[in-house]
Amino acid sequence: MAEYRTFTTDDAMRFADEHSGLFGEHSKLSCEEFGDGNLNLVFRVENDKGTSLIVKQALPYARCVGESWPLTIDRARIEAEVLIKHRKLCPEHTVEVLHYDAEHAAILMEDLSDYRILRSELIAAKQFPHLAAQLAAYLANTLYYTSDFALTGPKKKQQVSQFLNPELCLITEDLFFTDPYCNHERNNVHSEIRTEAQQLWHDEVLQAEVAQLKADFLSKPQALLHGDMHSGSIFINDENCKVIDAEFGFYGPIGFDVGSLVGNLLLSYLSHFGLTADSSARETQQQYLLEQITCLWQQFSSQFKQLMEQECREPSLQNSLYQQRFMQQIWADTLGYAGCELIRRTVGLAHVADLDSISDSTLRGQCEAKALKLGRQLILQRHELANMAQLVALIQYQQA
Amino acid sequence: MAEYRTFTTDDAMRFADEHSGLFGEHSKLSCEEFGDGNLNLVFRVENDKGTSLIVKQALPYARCVGESWPLTIDRARIEAEVLIKHRKLCPEHTVEVLHYDAEHAAILMEDLSDYRILRSELIAAKQFPHLAAQLAAYLANTLYYTSDFALTGPKKKQQVSQFLNPELCLITEDLFFTDPYCNHERNNVHSEIRTEAQQLWHDEVLQAEVAQLKADFLSKPQALLHGDMHSGSIFINDENCKVIDAEFGFYGPIGFDVGSLVGNLLLSYLSHFGLTADSSARETQQQYLLEQITCLWQQFSSQFKQLMEQECREPSLQNSLYQQRFMQQIWADTLGYAGCELIRRTVGLAHVADLDSISDSTLRGQCEAKALKLGRQLILQRHELANMAQLVALIQYQQA
Repeated sequence: MAEYRTFTTDDAMRFADEHSGLFGEHSKLSCEEFGDGNLNLVFRVENDKGTSLIVKQALPYARCVGESWPLTIDRARIEAEVLIKHRKLCPEHTVEVLHYDAEHAAILMEDLSDYRILRSELIAAKQFPHLAAQLAAYLANTLYYTSDFALTGPKKKQQVSQFLNPELCLITEDLFFTDPYCNHERNNVHSEIRTEAQQLWHDEVLQAEVAQLKADFLSKPQALLHGDMHSGSIFINDENCKVIDAEFGFYGPIGFDVGSLVGNLLLSYLSHFGLTADSSARETQQQYLLEQITCLWQQFSSQFKQLMEQECREPSLQNSLYQQRFMQQIWADTLGYAGCELIRRTVGLAHVADLDSISDSTLRGQCEAKALKLGRQLILQRHELANMAQLVALIQYQQA
Repeated sequence: MAEYRTFTTDDAMRFADEHSGLFGEHSKLSCEEFGDGNLNLVFRVENDKGTSLIVKQALPYARCVGESWPLTIDRARIEAEVLIKHRKLCPEHTVEVLHYDAEHAAILMEDLSDYRILRSELIAAKQFPHLAAQLAAYLANTLYYTSDFALTGPKKKQQVSQFLNPELCLITEDLFFTDPYCNHERNNVHSEIRTEAQQLWHDEVLQAEVAQLKADFLSKPQALLHGDMHSGSIFINDENCKVIDAEFGFYGPIGFDVGSLVGNLLLSYLSHFGLTADSSARETQQQYLLEQITCLWQQFSSQFKQLMEQECREPSLQNSLYQQRFMQQIWADTLGYAGCELIRRTVGLAHVADLDSISDSTLRGQCEAKALKLGRQLILQRHELANMAQLVALIQYQQA
């Protein structure tokens, strides 16, 4: 294969066949394209024994707007290389990449056909007791082992350069940190919360805090982030969960990954005010989500602390007082980025199904207003909220 | 010319002749090598009309220890590219690079023969009223225009990658932040301050703060730093000063450049307790140095503020409350890195002539002890010292 071209199902089958020993006879393969994303083609290639693999190919433009929004296909390299690195650090919870082809920006990877997307499951009020503990392990291992605690200066600089990812970072810089705080044409504001959105656009105290969080996103390369840790990037079943879709990966602030996930769990929490009419069912699900958020932070922070204490290769960062402050700073960042996620998913371009699938628009507006209010509180109070108990109290206070 | 080889004076003349139109007849050139550094050859090439240029060639090893300590010659590229970029941003106070040759790691640059090295001048108790204002302009312009305020995310990421400079950063990571705080064989501790040095090696509260400053050096790419802003990197005469020697340039915390310079002015201040016996002459010189430090910060901060207010290209960083906090954070970093410079120049590998040229070893030991004490205070109190008046009071308190 030579120059880039968009794959047909035939191409995808050939690609899967060529780069895996799983399949046997080529003639017995079948293939369907099922991507619902805007940026990629996604094929499932299957043999007659039910073994299947995924072929994901980056499109050189954003599909939702035709071919008018060009987007580097180098993001397939980023995705493959982040996933391969993260899988080395946390094999249990990272999807397996079998092959990456630079010319075609195509990745052959494990099919998670016995898993489902976490977001849909949470919307359906499903519960998975292992969710938080497993994702905490993923975050602690991938973030610790790519940080200054584990890598020498030169080694880390090489990785910073390998994962610069300027184009996809720019999307986040705009959609996550800029648009929601001004009356930008890319925003998507339901009429029910127009007033609250306008307050946001004039809230200079909040904007100063968001500027700090954005500056850190631009200039705090602490670890190799997944970069897009929302509940649509996580596949789950009754035993396990696995992280996919790492094309936004880059070296950034640790709290961005943790906070994005916390923000998505909070979005699910708030959405059930609109999704689940039965108050007992709603309370059960919301209680579950709060427990998961609590467990996520506790397990993540205790594992990260343990790694700092036991594995740190850098003598001057072994100081225990420094490590304590480092965790405190990740905590504050986590709250801040979680708050940004709540806000940008409510008034920005990219909404979440959790809120958008609330059929009653008045109810949906109420949930969205709660998301804006809580998001603002998390950002403004991120240095004051001392621990998880205070965060939970603040969240529960929203219901009153 | 093809592969790297060490230049002879003949090579240096040919190189200068080939890459400048200044010289005329080749036969009338003369050349001397006068580098006293450990890492480079430095030639002055002159014609018979007294026009001269400098040829600086990076050696592939540290000369002070023979050929046993290999060091990338890519540092010549870094030096040339940083100086060219900084000169675009502040032509008055950056040495001019006429040509850079990658194969030979050689730079042809302006000869500052009518300038002298700032450190020697300060040791000789010379005064230059323009020193602080000019260096403030250099720092404000070079640092502002390479920061997130002036560059888009993608443009800055490209520059971060261009100026990674892993090998030379590693030298700073070790010599500046690690060695002085432990009993490292590379340290150079005069016997008179052995006790004070040992206290440093057990001071875990201080080490926690230094760990934070080191972590920021590793992971806070705010602007393209000079990276080695000591008074040996500055040439000065009665009208002007120019910055040279940018091989340590990289994207790091803005306060590192400002603090290194402040630290060197403070080293000069303290050294005059030992260098200048006459108390009136000493007070005059020390008063001059405090005024320069005050002026340096005031002019730097007011110019940087003005640039943020008037030139910021990034909408979300235009918030004035954020900009205020940003300056406050540069101030704290400046104090912290100045403190580190005081300490590492006293007990670390690379001393400064200011202290080392104090002939009476008891007096020298007293000055070194003052440097360690003030360094520690600056690091520990960097968030409490609210402004320049408080810093000056703290410094003057050392004399008591």
